[in-house]
Amino acid sequence: MNPLEKLINPVSIAVVGASSNPLKMATLHLLSIMKDGYKGRIYVIHPKEASVFGLKTYKSPLDLPEAVDCAFFVIPAHNIPETLKDFGTIGTKRAIIISAGFKEIGKEGKLLEDKLKSTAGINGIRFLGPNCMGIVNTEISLNTTIMEYIDRPGSLGFATQSGTYITQTLRYLKNHGIRLSKAVSVGNEADISIIDVLEYLANDEQTKAIALYIEGIRDIQRFLDVAITITPKKPIIAQYVGGSQAGARAGSSHTGAMAGPDYIYEGLFKQAGIIRVHSIEELFFHGYMLATQPRLKGNRVGIITNSGGPATSMANSCEKEGFIVPTFSVELQSKIKPLIPPHAQAGNPVDITFNLDLDVLTITIPELAIQSGEVDALCIHGAYRRGFVEAVYPHIREILNIQNPEDIINMFPSDLHTPGTIPQKHGIPLVMSSFYDYQDDFTKAMQDHDVLVFDAPEKAAKALASLLRYKEIINRLPYEPITLPESNPEAKAIILEAKKNNQKALDEYMAKRLLSLYGIPIPDERLIEDEKQLDGIVTSMRYPIVMKACHPDIMHKTEKGLVILPVKDSIEAKQAFQTIQNRAGYAIPVLAYPMVEGKREFMVGAVNNKGFAQSVLFGLGGIYTEVIQDATFRIAPLTQRDAYEMLNDIKAKTLLGKFRNMDEVDKDILAQLIVIVSVLPVLHPEIAEIDCNPVIISGNKPVVVDALIVIE
Amino acid sequence: MNPLEKLINPVSIAVVGASSNPLKMATLHLLSIMKDGYKGRIYVIHPKEASVFGLKTYKSPLDLPEAVDCAFFVIPAHNIPETLKDFGTIGTKRAIIISAGFKEIGKEGKLLEDKLKSTAGINGIRFLGPNCMGIVNTEISLNTTIMEYIDRPGSLGFATQSGTYITQTLRYLKNHGIRLSKAVSVGNEADISIIDVLEYLANDEQTKAIALYIEGIRDIQRFLDVAITITPKKPIIAQYVGGSQAGARAGSSHTGAMAGPDYIYEGLFKQAGIIRVHSIEELFFHGYMLATQPRLKGNRVGIITNSGGPATSMANSCEKEGFIVPTFSVELQSKIKPLIPPHAQAGNPVDITFNLDLDVLTITIPELAIQSGEVDALCIHGAYRRGFVEAVYPHIREILNIQNPEDIINMFPSDLHTPGTIPQKHGIPLVMSSFYDYQDDFTKAMQDHDVLVFDAPEKAAKALASLLRYKEIINRLPYEPITLPESNPEAKAIILEAKKNNQKALDEYMAKRLLSLYGIPIPDERLIEDEKQLDGIVTSMRYPIVMKACHPDIMHKTEKGLVILPVKDSIEAKQAFQTIQNRAGYAIPVLAYPMVEGKREFMVGAVNNKGFAQSVLFGLGGIYTEVIQDATFRIAPLTQRDAYEMLNDIKAKTLLGKFRNMDEVDKDILAQLIVIVSVLPVLHPEIAEIDCNPVIISGNKPVVVDALIVIE
Repeated sequence: MNPLEKLINPVSIAVVGASSNPLKMATLHLLSIMKDGYKGRIYVIHPKEASVFGLKTYKSPLDLPEAVDCAFFVIPAHNIPETLKDFGTIGTKRAIIISAGFKEIGKEGKLLEDKLKSTAGINGIRFLGPNCMGIVNTEISLNTTIMEYIDRPGSLGFATQSGTYITQTLRYLKNHGIRLSKAVSVGNEADISIIDVLEYLANDEQTKAIALYIEGIRDIQRFLDVAITITPKKPIIAQYVGGSQAGARAGSSHTGAMAGPDYIYEGLFKQAGIIRVHSIEELFFHGYMLATQPRLKGNRVGIITNSGGPATSMANSCEKEGFIVPTFSVELQSKIKPLIPPHAQAGNPVDITFNLDLDVLTITIPELAIQSGEVDALCIHGAYRRGFVEAVYPHIREILNIQNPEDIINMFPSDLHTPGTIPQKHGIPLVMSSFYDYQDDFTKAMQDHDVLVFDAPEKAAKALASLLRYKEIINRLPYEPITLPESNPEAKAIILEAKKNNQKALDEYMAKRLLSLYGIPIPDERLIEDEKQLDGIVTSMRYPIVMKACHPDIMHKTEKGLVILPVKDSIEAKQAFQTIQNRAGYAIPVLAYPMVEGKREFMVGAVNNKGFAQSVLFGLGGIYTEVIQDATFRIAPLTQRDAYEMLNDIKAKTLLGKFRNMDEVDKDILAQLIVIVSVLPVLHPEIAEIDCNPVIISGNKPVVVDALIVIE
Repeated sequence: MNPLEKLINPVSIAVVGASSNPLKMATLHLLSIMKDGYKGRIYVIHPKEASVFGLKTYKSPLDLPEAVDCAFFVIPAHNIPETLKDFGTIGTKRAIIISAGFKEIGKEGKLLEDKLKSTAGINGIRFLGPNCMGIVNTEISLNTTIMEYIDRPGSLGFATQSGTYITQTLRYLKNHGIRLSKAVSVGNEADISIIDVLEYLANDEQTKAIALYIEGIRDIQRFLDVAITITPKKPIIAQYVGGSQAGARAGSSHTGAMAGPDYIYEGLFKQAGIIRVHSIEELFFHGYMLATQPRLKGNRVGIITNSGGPATSMANSCEKEGFIVPTFSVELQSKIKPLIPPHAQAGNPVDITFNLDLDVLTITIPELAIQSGEVDALCIHGAYRRGFVEAVYPHIREILNIQNPEDIINMFPSDLHTPGTIPQKHGIPLVMSSFYDYQDDFTKAMQDHDVLVFDAPEKAAKALASLLRYKEIINRLPYEPITLPESNPEAKAIILEAKKNNQKALDEYMAKRLLSLYGIPIPDERLIEDEKQLDGIVTSMRYPIVMKACHPDIMHKTEKGLVILPVKDSIEAKQAFQTIQNRAGYAIPVLAYPMVEGKREFMVGAVNNKGFAQSVLFGLGGIYTEVIQDATFRIAPLTQRDAYEMLNDIKAKTLLGKFRNMDEVDKDILAQLIVIVSVLPVLHPEIAEIDCNPVIISGNKPVVVDALIVIE
């Protein structure tokens, strides 16, 4: 059973730390639980006060009349383990620990957190926090935060590594018509993690989309395994803020989160099918779009406005986000034209120009567009009523001899109900923008129907695009679990031998030999270990060849002149061998292989970031590796699908197709190469890093021309 | 004199089209002029009504008692020229034409617009519009739009190609504490253009920063010339929405704007020193930051919050935008620590955790940080008062037996004045975020002091970064006007000869010859015009060489096998010559030059987009041209500064430095090459296009290895 199950749906809660002082945080938590509509039983543990706000208090958990479902702590950190033990004694199995002062403050806090964990473990208690804000479960009107949840239950699930985002934001969400299903502040994740919450929300029927605020994921692999199975069925949207140096430092002192480089999370989200956003605003708004709007069936968007500026800007933003803004058919335009002034535009964007008849803008034309079958989504700008009246009211009030603005508003007999029903009625997503916020009755009415109204046309378009991203995600190749190949005994022997020799890396010959044992294409190469072998080898090569010093300790071979190419015949080969010996200053083996011709160079690599994640890289290789940094990352090991998506995820992907005089690259072989590189560190945990660079496309097939395998 | 001068500061206005019907647009315009505080004389021209809202009406402009400063038209388009003529007769010199139905509706409207222009011209009248919303001049409380301007005068000037953005947005701006100086809706720009407005705002003392909403600039060159001299003194910020197919189409039917590709505007803005944003929200908010906050002196930002999430997110966003978030010194931290709880963070971000003492968050710690000299800017999140009280009020009201929430608010004796004075007092920019909007008294107080409060921490950080962008702009090399070199007579002769032969392009030999006449480095090449010259030339070459068919009509030489390389000696050269003759199928001249070695390939080009702009390109060349599309554009002709900035503006700029075994590129020569390419189409208007690709870096010097010059 998911540990959240009972914690988020408790029939009884005991609050430890609240008193009669309503300005203390602990008390505010209690008051939210008492006053936001929760119907379960609430107990207060307090050493001195006899009652708190009419609730009888208990000196100790041991005095409670029942084993409460959830113990709720807002007392100084060091007092928690002892009281938690008492809850264990009475049979309580879940706790929420709000108090801070644990791992996030350093060594001492870490020790206390360990104690908390072991106390909980011994007593069979699963807990949320510490250093969190608890939960909001709108289904049972339970809100443990210090601010009021003031809206009806909604459909956006939220797991957050910042408690603020379900506290300070509650009114903000209300103002924007964003309604939560369940929200969980995970704090330090000493026990229950954000991944547990993700799993819970995935199975929660009330939750239609899941938003994640992330400062750092501890178990990247589990996160991926969990998320990857959710995203085909339920959208996940995430913000990650730990990717910069400053973000990582701040996150670490916030909840002790272990952040990682931004590119790893970028790859992780893509691999898992998670939509990424870059602000808390987008997290909430786009998340709610995903939770409430019908799935997008195509990428044609109809734009209807009362103004050319927002129309143009929306059209521009929609196209930039991947939508098409098709010119409407003559037939559809002929139906729209009678509804709008002669100089107005019917072609998409439709610009009805200044018009106080909201029905035309928000019902008649939208329905015509939908019925035509020419749009898959709608963007509407400029629907407002009270906002307009209030802007012109001071001007027209005296003239019309009207005292009450309501009378003016009623002069506009707009249907505020029907526009909001369009998405569900027709299965067509709708998004709006207006410069009039929740104080406008039209905006409010749309929000009541789960249609978001953005305060900028570009933001509406961008939010709509999150539905397009999700469409791409559900259209991915089906997910297939990974079956690892068997570990190759000779490869293992190569590594063991190198370790025995205290090498930090395999030499190039051995590295490529190891790769070839797993079927990775390498040049037909020979190692000339000493002068004795020279004659025999150089006379049997296919020229031109490359000759390179080959030793695990030699770095920067090119700069040291230890790579010679092209070597045209056996005479030159013998000279080159001597040159390399002379430049090295000692007898050194030389690797020789026929030159691999090909203008297209890529790189494939894997890094075992111990304790964090094994990552895989695919990108542009050769001299452009550093220059352009056109690379994409994923978490190892990969499936074939992942590898294909990587091929498609670099800017230079054109190079993989038919290009100039070059054939289309054999993507099956290249994808397989990436998959194998990704599994090698799993099969051989001694491998710390693999770099295949360049991987030259020879004809249409990849060949690993240089490789480094670092071991440890 | 700028034509806006009188138009935006009229002492008298005559409104044509307004009536007593307060729900007609024309009347709403009149009501705004009458009721928003304008002290000038207002006249109404109306054929039938004797008076309108107590104003005596005049049947014709000819009946007016004075030559009004500004005639204001909201009548059907086709009636305007005649009435405009009457205004001309009485001596009126300025007009604002609100009416639509001109160029934006197509051919017929275009004719009408031409008539309007000629009528105005004959009568010496300069006018704004048609198809616009007029102006807002807060300095004299003149608002000609249909909605109320409800705030005190501000410092953001605004020129917009959408009238909506100074109409529907007025309340929105008020809610966010953004105050305008002068705003002008330019409509179709039949006469007065957005460039005229830009020039006006540049000289307007009330205006401290200029925001531009752009769907398309008609005279790119003049726009650049004007803007480039403004930006070192006054920030300009712009949104451009015409860069996509849909955006261009929508803009064209909106105001008949002539849009151009996004990359041209991207380059134009960079060249002019204009900060670019991508939403109307950012245009207003970032514009207002630039108008009101002190100039940034460095890039160290201090972050102070009451919550770890926003702290982390702000830190992450600031770093991504180019700021440093330095860990505070031990000394500074030791001053902050006594002010915050033991487990709170003093290191930057400062996270004071839940705390109702706003002064610590918004005064004490900010002043400590500033006094330390360790920050150049401040970001603060989490200051709210009424918002918090209202969120917890329902909970604590009964308990404290308080009827009036005001009594609770007064329990928080925060200083709402001082925080907003920090930026001006210390010369340190300040930006805030809070999830409580203008309904919160703290937010409102900050807005009153011109400190913006964003509803997401990321947005605050991004807005602050616009100050960083402006810092970079004022730190540019000084602007130097261009002195064009003299036109070379031999170059002219080459072009004339080609034109005489009806060539569409110069052949490669002549193209490079022309470039070399202007000092552009090309290979030491020879043209073998026929077999007779073969022997003499091939024996005098420095091998290896490249041999290429050379004829203005032959495209795709490589694909047709008409380029042979490397050619190793004179024997091979003779064979290659024959091979090319055979493959071409007829006698064809062959170009021969020593191979230019170099791994770094760039491209430099210029296109004369007739009637729009001459653009110049610098980017990665060779096979990566299409693959990576790492290129930057500017408007020709360039200064040396422009060319240097282009070198720095490609992703692959590392290639220009010391890189692997390669020397740093001689940037003076490369920049000079770009400058010359940029001026060639100016010196020789017959040149429609120049492509130098690749420009190979040989050693550290650029050589144009292939060139195409299209003529017309």
